[in-house]
Amino acid sequence: MNILGLARHGLTGFEQIAVVSVVIVAIISLLYAWFLRSIVMKKPKGTEEMQRVWEAIRVGADSYLNRQLRSILPSIGILTVALFFSVYIVPPTPEALEEFPNNTQLIIAIGRTVAFIAGASFSLLVGQLGMRMAIQGNVRVAAASRKGFNDALEIAYYSGTVTGMLTDGLGLLGGTIIFIIFGRAAPDALLGFGFGGTLLALFMRVGGGIYTKAADVGADLVGKVEEDIPEDDPRNAAVIADLVGDNVGDCAGMAADIFESYEVTIVSALILGIALVEVDPTHSLKWIVFPLIIRGVGVISSIIGTFTVPVWERLPIPILRAHNAEEAMFRSYEVSSVITVAVSFIFATVYANDWRLGALTAIGVGLAVAFNPLTSYFTATRKKPVQEVIDSMETGTATTILSGLSLGMESTVWALVVIAISFVLAILLYSGSGALYVLYAVAMIGIGMLSHTGNNVAMDSYGPISDNANGIGELAWQGMEDEETLNARQIMADLDAVGNTTKAITKGIAIASAVIAAVSLFASYITDVGRAQAAIGLPRLDAIRISDTGVFIGLLLGGALPWLFSSLAIRAVSRAAGEIVQEVRNQFKIPGIMEGTVTPDYARVIGISTASSQKELIPLAVISITLPLMVGLMLGVEALGGFLGGVILSGQLLAVFMSNSGGAWDNAKKGVEDEESDIEANTGKGSERHKSGVVGDTIGDPLKDTAGPALNPMIKVVNLVSLIAAPILVRYSDLGWGGWLVVLLLGAGFVWGVTQSKKPSEPFVDIPAESGD
Amino acid sequence: MNILGLARHGLTGFEQIAVVSVVIVAIISLLYAWFLRSIVMKKPKGTEEMQRVWEAIRVGADSYLNRQLRSILPSIGILTVALFFSVYIVPPTPEALEEFPNNTQLIIAIGRTVAFIAGASFSLLVGQLGMRMAIQGNVRVAAASRKGFNDALEIAYYSGTVTGMLTDGLGLLGGTIIFIIFGRAAPDALLGFGFGGTLLALFMRVGGGIYTKAADVGADLVGKVEEDIPEDDPRNAAVIADLVGDNVGDCAGMAADIFESYEVTIVSALILGIALVEVDPTHSLKWIVFPLIIRGVGVISSIIGTFTVPVWERLPIPILRAHNAEEAMFRSYEVSSVITVAVSFIFATVYANDWRLGALTAIGVGLAVAFNPLTSYFTATRKKPVQEVIDSMETGTATTILSGLSLGMESTVWALVVIAISFVLAILLYSGSGALYVLYAVAMIGIGMLSHTGNNVAMDSYGPISDNANGIGELAWQGMEDEETLNARQIMADLDAVGNTTKAITKGIAIASAVIAAVSLFASYITDVGRAQAAIGLPRLDAIRISDTGVFIGLLLGGALPWLFSSLAIRAVSRAAGEIVQEVRNQFKIPGIMEGTVTPDYARVIGISTASSQKELIPLAVISITLPLMVGLMLGVEALGGFLGGVILSGQLLAVFMSNSGGAWDNAKKGVEDEESDIEANTGKGSERHKSGVVGDTIGDPLKDTAGPALNPMIKVVNLVSLIAAPILVRYSDLGWGGWLVVLLLGAGFVWGVTQSKKPSEPFVDIPAESGD
Repeated sequence: MNILGLARHGLTGFEQIAVVSVVIVAIISLLYAWFLRSIVMKKPKGTEEMQRVWEAIRVGADSYLNRQLRSILPSIGILTVALFFSVYIVPPTPEALEEFPNNTQLIIAIGRTVAFIAGASFSLLVGQLGMRMAIQGNVRVAAASRKGFNDALEIAYYSGTVTGMLTDGLGLLGGTIIFIIFGRAAPDALLGFGFGGTLLALFMRVGGGIYTKAADVGADLVGKVEEDIPEDDPRNAAVIADLVGDNVGDCAGMAADIFESYEVTIVSALILGIALVEVDPTHSLKWIVFPLIIRGVGVISSIIGTFTVPVWERLPIPILRAHNAEEAMFRSYEVSSVITVAVSFIFATVYANDWRLGALTAIGVGLAVAFNPLTSYFTATRKKPVQEVIDSMETGTATTILSGLSLGMESTVWALVVIAISFVLAILLYSGSGALYVLYAVAMIGIGMLSHTGNNVAMDSYGPISDNANGIGELAWQGMEDEETLNARQIMADLDAVGNTTKAITKGIAIASAVIAAVSLFASYITDVGRAQAAIGLPRLDAIRISDTGVFIGLLLGGALPWLFSSLAIRAVSRAAGEIVQEVRNQFKIPGIMEGTVTPDYARVIGISTASSQKELIPLAVISITLPLMVGLMLGVEALGGFLGGVILSGQLLAVFMSNSGGAWDNAKKGVEDEESDIEANTGKGSERHKSGVVGDTIGDPLKDTAGPALNPMIKVVNLVSLIAAPILVRYSDLGWGGWLVVLLLGAGFVWGVTQSKKPSEPFVDIPAESGD
Repeated sequence: MNILGLARHGLTGFEQIAVVSVVIVAIISLLYAWFLRSIVMKKPKGTEEMQRVWEAIRVGADSYLNRQLRSILPSIGILTVALFFSVYIVPPTPEALEEFPNNTQLIIAIGRTVAFIAGASFSLLVGQLGMRMAIQGNVRVAAASRKGFNDALEIAYYSGTVTGMLTDGLGLLGGTIIFIIFGRAAPDALLGFGFGGTLLALFMRVGGGIYTKAADVGADLVGKVEEDIPEDDPRNAAVIADLVGDNVGDCAGMAADIFESYEVTIVSALILGIALVEVDPTHSLKWIVFPLIIRGVGVISSIIGTFTVPVWERLPIPILRAHNAEEAMFRSYEVSSVITVAVSFIFATVYANDWRLGALTAIGVGLAVAFNPLTSYFTATRKKPVQEVIDSMETGTATTILSGLSLGMESTVWALVVIAISFVLAILLYSGSGALYVLYAVAMIGIGMLSHTGNNVAMDSYGPISDNANGIGELAWQGMEDEETLNARQIMADLDAVGNTTKAITKGIAIASAVIAAVSLFASYITDVGRAQAAIGLPRLDAIRISDTGVFIGLLLGGALPWLFSSLAIRAVSRAAGEIVQEVRNQFKIPGIMEGTVTPDYARVIGISTASSQKELIPLAVISITLPLMVGLMLGVEALGGFLGGVILSGQLLAVFMSNSGGAWDNAKKGVEDEESDIEANTGKGSERHKSGVVGDTIGDPLKDTAGPALNPMIKVVNLVSLIAAPILVRYSDLGWGGWLVVLLLGAGFVWGVTQSKKPSEPFVDIPAESGD
């Protein structure tokens, strides 16, 4: 049997069928996304007023994404060329020579370059299409909320699922096709694919994150804190920018980010799998095919799980019936998990003849599930930690902030302990077989953890969709007080509240999976460096020794990078929010605005948000790319390994800290808002305690939605850059004057990145929002 | 020649003289401290009213320290016994057998135990005597300020120098005497000595840090924020607790902490030196004697430098004359530095025959000097970063906090880069000789960096002394408006302002030196584990490989510990401050308090501060001791090495971040206070911007003065515990049921520590401040 020439790579008949089936599953998931889209698109878009508000959001979001694309295209171009020629600097790997005896370098160069472009395009597509779908969904959710809860939930969740299945489908398709074409020479192309996706995700996260929080913080600071007007009030000039921000940040940024984690775990599992094929006495290709199968299984489980979400509330069996949207989503997540774990144990024992592979999938799935209660414990309003933050409001803003900081610092420790436990399990399962098996086991945990990406992205996108729906309702139904409207408002408020929880939970999973993915990449790094060294006859690097002072320096510098990155991201938001505050304050002074008779100039605020987020894209990417290269060139590949360890450690700790502190402040504020408003008793909206809560929420915003999430792709960009550069660093370990020149150039780039990012953005001269192009 | 039996250890005649001279220098520095003390004690203590206020501070501080001592004595007792018997679990080292062929284990056990008690007692002494001296100084500074600037400066600085020279003298004496007695078997005893000092420092830092900031934050929150009364207002019930806090936190805690760094750098230099003696083909003892010589030189330089401080302002040569207190201190620091560097090059070339040893001292001294401008750039009011924080006050509290967080995150990166550069220099100098030489070089940089501990502690203690003097003036000179009083007030305000700067700078140096010391300990760890393994015939651990999954887990857990520790410390302050706020609020309601006709019950607030700081001592120490032991037992010695790397990385990054964010907020607030007060224009005291500044300062307080500084000794406690446990871990690497029982007990201890620390303190039942016993 030789389907699609797969026998050439040494696959058995069953394995050929399995790989082809995975491709078919990937296509099915894309078709499923298309099917859900058509369900949503058939729903009505509501009144003319609603569509007017919606149009403003749509145009703002589209024009932002288009603008962002133009900003980053040149750098993508430069990197494409660099990647192409990077293949020529080093000799091809033995695997490449085996798979492609003729024109090896050209084939690999083209493969890597095309894969890079594909990875970047897929990431972009997931972000762009996902966001556009969310925008199509939000106005329809608002319209459906007038009909009933289940109708609204269905649209919101299915719209989110479209993005989820796109993520699954494109991620699986890309990785599998690369393997079909390149076989055991796949790592070269896979690295390009992973790097493209991750880089785009970094851009989307940084840009979207700064945009959304600059607008949000700016809107809140003047609206809620100074003028005491409610959220989503049409008199606030920043209100449309805020709604646009939810889409470009929480939808587009998040989708691209999770897509990239999904991709990268496949990349590292395949790289480590290929290394195992060499080492394993049977030379079985199961180490490569098994992860692909699990991903295929996960997609099928996701389809079944996500499709059942609207069913749970109508279920005739009372014990299984869900009582609200949150329960329905969790129930369907559980369905997906059970299917995946059961099926993966079957494949593990019957096909791979190693039950432990099934256990690894189960650990991965379990890890994703474990992060739900963990994140929820530290960020849910009714739980003790957030209650303590609420208590601390009694003594003012300072204690509110301190208790949130303390909470975040503690939560990041436990998140890390959970991850460490999963690694311990990997060791227990595979330490008898050898170190490389343990590293592969860690990568397989990543495969398992992200197998329900469809569900996760669906739950996450659901958040901004219902948030926006709520906003559209607020803006379009001004002054309507009939029962249907009140009812619809309540439904949307409920959906929105659930969205905050699901968003927080998926954020926790996204960070954890980023760390697992990064650790797998780190493991691949060692393998890859060793291979590159063996290829040119050098002794193989067999370990990253932090007891070596040079490597320890690498560890220190790596640990510092996430702090620098976060510092710059927070500063960017803080500065942009300041500009927006000034702008909104100025507009409030225009006669008629506060009375609601004159519409504010929404476009000016959109312009500020756009300009300040654009400005950071290239500098932050340059910092993340140049520093590891400098460390690698100056201190060597082993020190770069230490650097990667430091980046992962600091990145994980900082990301969860920022995410959970922010989430806790947000929900603590909501907790106070749910109290009865009584200024005298210092409770509810408008009280001093509420003001402290709003300040906390505002501080948390850029932490939890800009800096924290942007660390996910940053960690992986650093790892992938190092992986791609490894063979070059190995070959040119003795820097000549040319090498030092490169170091100097990289250093200049790094310094430029830092200073450029710290510069205030150009004085605001009326940047109009472009009409959707 | 055989002075004091030193020939027995193999020392040459010159080396014997050198070692004895070092002991003499140590004694000289103690005599110099005594001499300065008598100068200060002769000065008048001012009016009766001043002495009444001062008496309250003195009694509060004394009774706190006594109470703290009682809290920690049981645990010191337990550890003493444990250390004694720890020697019996493992076979003695070959060096110990060589130096003491008979009764080896008993001698080593007694040596280690006595050294532990000595280390703890010295640390306690430095803290206790230093603080008592500071309290003797402060009232005299207040009295002298009525006579003139130079008189006040002299008393404040000389009082601080007493503590500085105590630190130098006791640190040098302890280390050298241990070497004289034990020779090449010294590491066993040195570890006990270091551990004792570090553990005490941890207690003093944690207790003092929580005490001082609970009182400070509590006083500010009600006094400044709610009631709008000035700092140090006698109507505020927390005002005496606040002044006491300056002494127990900034004086006692800081002195014990720096003493411990001073000690620990000697410990690690000697351990690595002894390892080098083995490896070095000449087997020269210079690797051990040289660091002792440099320390001796540093003490002499410190004496010369510190003594000249009051001279610089009276200098006849205009170009060298200092124009203010800050300049005078820096000038004298420069004098010390020049002498040390010059003399150490002489010893390096003439005695050790290796100019690079001189270069290492120079790098160390340079590192301490480099931290001045670095810390000052990020925390001084006139510099750009703090100016940006001040600008961000324009848009409210949230942006003020965000810009401070961002600033702190950036500053920690550059601090780490400076440290990394010093390591690179160590590599450049010694990489040709081998890895162990590089590690020794790092330890020698630590020796150089802390050689002017006398000056550093003097500059640091000077801060709280002038702060307290200012407070005594405020409280005792109520309503006095004559010219002499106004003049004296101005002088003290100036001294106080300089104190804030010098305190911030020495804090930066303290953290950096803690990291260097910890890295040296980390280096000793590898050497020591290897030695322990060789002793029982196991293969020597030659590296800490984070590419091994188990070691990577160690790295992750180690990185998490400083976050947990900081979280608990911040929470403790925040909770205690909340209680104090309630108490002060209640007292304000008592008729007559606000009018100033009734004296508030200061003792109740002192009681709250005391109780809540006492409560944390044991739990935080237990956490720091149990976690490394658990990691070592469960994952092995190499994973524990990874753990240490993680602790150092996270600890350094967090400590500088917290310290500089806090410092920047503090000075940003001061910047606003220096503006003209105009509520309309939103400038100066009482404006909205000022309120944001006060909130920032309050948030920064526990970060910069509790959690941040407490990380210094914590990092080293963890390293020393690991070093001491290493031989045991090596021997019992295969845990039987007994081993797992120990793990279980340690785990229970850890969980107890976390839950105990998180518990609210006992409901406040009137804990009277004890009268000084």
